[in-house]
Amino acid sequence: MPSSLHVIGHQQPDTDTICSALAYARLKQAQGVDATPARAGEVNPETQFVLDRWDTESPSLLDDAAGEQLILVDHNEYSQAVSGAHDATIVEVVDHHRIGDIETSDPIYFRNEPVGSTATILTQLYEEANKTIDAQTAGLLLSGLLSDTVVLRSPTTTDQDRSIADHLADIAGVDIEKYGKELLQQKSKIGEKSPRE
Amino acid sequence: MPSSLHVIGHQQPDTDTICSALAYARLKQAQGVDATPARAGEVNPETQFVLDRWDTESPSLLDDAAGEQLILVDHNEYSQAVSGAHDATIVEVVDHHRIGDIETSDPIYFRNEPVGSTATILTQLYEEANKTIDAQTAGLLLSGLLSDTVVLRSPTTTDQDRSIADHLADIAGVDIEKYGKELLQQKSKIGEKSPRE
Ligand SMILES: [Mn+2]
Ligand SMILES: [Mn+2]
Ligand SMILES: [Mn+2]
Ligand SMILES: [Mn+2]
Repeated sequence: MPSSLHVIGHQQPDTDTICSALAYARLKQAQGVDATPARAGEVNPETQFVLDRWDTESPSLLDDAAGEQLILVDHNEYSQAVSGAHDATIVEVVDHHRIGDIETSDPIYFRNEPVGSTATILTQLYEEANKTIDAQTAGLLLSGLLSDTVVLRSPTTTDQDRSIADHLADIAGVDIEKYGKELLQQKSKIGEKSPRE
Repeated sequence: MPSSLHVIGHQQPDTDTICSALAYARLKQAQGVDATPARAGEVNPETQFVLDRWDTESPSLLDDAAGEQLILVDHNEYSQAVSGAHDATIVEVVDHHRIGDIETSDPIYFRNEPVGSTATILTQLYEEANKTIDAQTAGLLLSGLLSDTVVLRSPTTTDQDRSIADHLADIAGVDIEKYGKELLQQKSKIGEKSPRE
């Protein structure tokens, strides 16, 4: 089987990881690159709420990345990556964390910025590529941004996050505080599941 | 002595490394950040020609980076970095090579692109920051770009390099082929020095 190009976030995916995989795969497709969104684990309740709210299918589970081509979003260390990542080819990284242990043999696009979410950076990448963000994609990106920054209240929140959140909320047609509140209610449900479930 | 912020390229500096350190330090200064250009070794004859041609002083030599803050340009591995880099704080990276072994404890700006020169990326950073590139800085950036791409003839040359070279040549007021020829003549002098010199 020939290798495919997957856009994938970290294990134990959060909303920023899933929404970034979806949004970046869409940007790649808009640029004529055959990339599919993937996930490295189960979708949590907050993220499921977001997917339902924006009428979007979950990325499919990639359980072994060996031999595949990967665009990593929202992480840049092997310990957090999908299983098999060591035997995959990392072709791009977009993230907002400390610089980890990814090394490559060829030059690749690696974009890490000290901002509140990967979604923030992806919004800029859409702009730099002159590609329109539709309402659905804006809703997903906004969800990743608001989830990671606790509705712009976390100490990691930058001015860039704030102005990009405004822009995304405009396109998505939601009110940041109102939608953020709904999201936080879902967040509080994470961990509520009993071990039996 | 409090630590200072240095913009610095690799050991055995080439024209892209020196010109990128100069141009990025200028951008940082234009953004109100107190950054100074530095070098990790002797300036080669090609680069000296470029500095003379664009009436620019060489960055000063940093012989021990321990305890300092570093913005790395044109490299992203410790083996190529200024001595003491392991005991410095890496606060940013802008490069066009394979991803190396730099790890950080905090999120930083890390921008690597598979293009012909670091100067190509820096030209984009000026544009993204909405800062004007003056003729002198354009001349330096063009020199880094043309040196690394062997006047746009190396297999690493991308369409982006070509269009950015045109843009820089316009600002600098030079003809790419004519200036490139002068530069290549200097390049051929590298290694001509006898060991006695
Ligand atoms: Mn995450
Ligand atoms: Mn994140
Ligand atoms: Mn170099
Ligand atoms: Mn270079």
